[in-house]
Amino acid sequence: MKAKAAVMHRPHEPLTIEMIDLDQPARNEVLIKTAFAGVCHSDLHYMEGLYPRACPCVLGHESSGVVLAVGSDVTYVKPGDHVITCVSVFCGECEYCLSGRMSLCVSPATRRAETAPPRMSLNGVAMPQPGNLSSFADHMLVHEHAVVKIRPDMPLDKAALIGCAVTTGVGAVFRTAKVEPGSTVAVTGMGGIGLSAINGAAIAGAGRIIAIDRVASKSNLAKEFGATDFVDASAVDPVKEIRAMTDGGVDYSFECVGLKQTVEQSFRMIKRGGCATVIGMMPVGMRFELSGAEILGEKRIQGCAMGSNRFRTDMPRFVAFYMRGLLKLDLMISGRVTLEQINEAYAELKKGEVARQVIAF
Amino acid sequence: MKAKAAVMHRPHEPLTIEMIDLDQPARNEVLIKTAFAGVCHSDLHYMEGLYPRACPCVLGHESSGVVLAVGSDVTYVKPGDHVITCVSVFCGECEYCLSGRMSLCVSPATRRAETAPPRMSLNGVAMPQPGNLSSFADHMLVHEHAVVKIRPDMPLDKAALIGCAVTTGVGAVFRTAKVEPGSTVAVTGMGGIGLSAINGAAIAGAGRIIAIDRVASKSNLAKEFGATDFVDASAVDPVKEIRAMTDGGVDYSFECVGLKQTVEQSFRMIKRGGCATVIGMMPVGMRFELSGAEILGEKRIQGCAMGSNRFRTDMPRFVAFYMRGLLKLDLMISGRVTLEQINEAYAELKKGEVARQVIAF
Repeated sequence: MKAKAAVMHRPHEPLTIEMIDLDQPARNEVLIKTAFAGVCHSDLHYMEGLYPRACPCVLGHESSGVVLAVGSDVTYVKPGDHVITCVSVFCGECEYCLSGRMSLCVSPATRRAETAPPRMSLNGVAMPQPGNLSSFADHMLVHEHAVVKIRPDMPLDKAALIGCAVTTGVGAVFRTAKVEPGSTVAVTGMGGIGLSAINGAAIAGAGRIIAIDRVASKSNLAKEFGATDFVDASAVDPVKEIRAMTDGGVDYSFECVGLKQTVEQSFRMIKRGGCATVIGMMPVGMRFELSGAEILGEKRIQGCAMGSNRFRTDMPRFVAFYMRGLLKLDLMISGRVTLEQINEAYAELKKGEVARQVIAF
Repeated sequence: MKAKAAVMHRPHEPLTIEMIDLDQPARNEVLIKTAFAGVCHSDLHYMEGLYPRACPCVLGHESSGVVLAVGSDVTYVKPGDHVITCVSVFCGECEYCLSGRMSLCVSPATRRAETAPPRMSLNGVAMPQPGNLSSFADHMLVHEHAVVKIRPDMPLDKAALIGCAVTTGVGAVFRTAKVEPGSTVAVTGMGGIGLSAINGAAIAGAGRIIAIDRVASKSNLAKEFGATDFVDASAVDPVKEIRAMTDGGVDYSFECVGLKQTVEQSFRMIKRGGCATVIGMMPVGMRFELSGAEILGEKRIQGCAMGSNRFRTDMPRFVAFYMRGLLKLDLMISGRVTLEQINEAYAELKKGEVARQVIAF
């Protein structure tokens, strides 16, 4: 079948809107009519060539939709079901999947790039499927382990955000770091993931939640998500400031930017025995430096892959949090655009002044 | 009272044996007749000026002894009790002590340097008490929270090792990293701490325990402590070797050297989702570099302070492990020396070819 998609032909060039071809669902696949796709920062890294990607390809990995058709073996969803897509498809058979760490699964069994024949093409040229999804298209053909079924009364624009930013930011707080009630938390970078981490810390009952950003105007937004304090990193040294505010450092920090400086600062702003969680997608080859003397105070730094999430367990929980008014997804969506406006939407994102835009199909 | 001690007058000079003065026990203090003191690598760092220390002073922090006298408020021990000393004295009142992380306590309440008047002096000049102990002396005057009482049938030479190397290495496995049965473990550096970590991993039921050292002759010793494999880091790249041996990396690595290169290697030899624990005492100002892409595979690196130990709970357990034949302390002691031979003992240690020497008083 045909689908309308935003195609990346090579880095540093605008995406172009094209009609692409999708195959029929194989036995374990699901065809989805895309409802919404988030304009997420990690795709910008691909467009800017910071991570290599085989081209042409269709990016996009934070989406929601309605099931149109399923392969012969699929029983988990049926046509008409509402779903959130998962950028981390799980195999359900490996050590990671079977120990509650499915976001670490790298099994080729469910990976799109490994599937032969390819599932999508442009003018007869097979295309890989980045993130196993390719959400910048009005239809998606994905593995059944790349979808999570949600209740039909959940608005699909908010649901799309749960596909990446929310799962990652809230999951980092709940699952990667396991923040306890009453503890102190600092979050650097008030994009979709950072605001989700703030929101997750508020739901988890953190005692003090400090938002850090270089754009002072994000203070109010951060506070609406649950931040108790805001530090303007363009005006003060955030490490000094946070150490002073918290008598030596926070229990938990979350880095949601992906820069050497912010990773190092996130480690330095935790107290003895504290834990820094690195979420921001860092450019290929990026390295960061830590102090030996500091780490010996039982400081910990750890990476986070998709919020250490258990997709089919956790995404419906996030939906429930939204429906109860605890997850502030209405505030997170700063604008809606059409697929044709995708290049402008990314130009906006790059300025760093918007929270999360979604593409409406 | 008078005590015979090895005094450091300044870095890079031999210690000299002198008669020093100890005060009478204050209300919460314990006077100990030292039985044995370990020749531990961290004191070498002080002697070589890598960490600044006020001089003159008496080093030594891994010791056992017999209680001679106690202050008026002390009820935990009485004269005649056998004790192990703790380099991390605990206050019993702070957030860390009261959350099971007493090795992170930095409360001044129990710290020797903070005590006025000073507890020891040389020719009328007050001396600080490094590590709150100063074990290179035939008597020690310490805070009651710096001792753990042990059963009297435990040999005191082996008991001394529990004061630092064993508590740190075994504790890093049990408490800091929480190694599970069947998991894969790699330990870099086969000194007292590294051998203890190997031994701890064996007691914890690790499935594969890989010892790494640049001295190939340590292979047999490591295996006696429980290592299943040995990697000679002077002959091969330990990261490549371990990744090949374990299909991508170990679950847990332990760094027991304290060098930039070995810290970085310890991080790189863990698998996706793995955990590196840094124990080795690093020189002041030492920094290490990690790869952003690697940490995002949910890798974790954390420091370890005295094995995250709960001294009064854990040290008697270690004694029991020794008495049951599980903790191989007999193998760890490579030689006995007198206090007068301390400079020669450190020269031996520096060569890297001995496991653990103890000073017998």
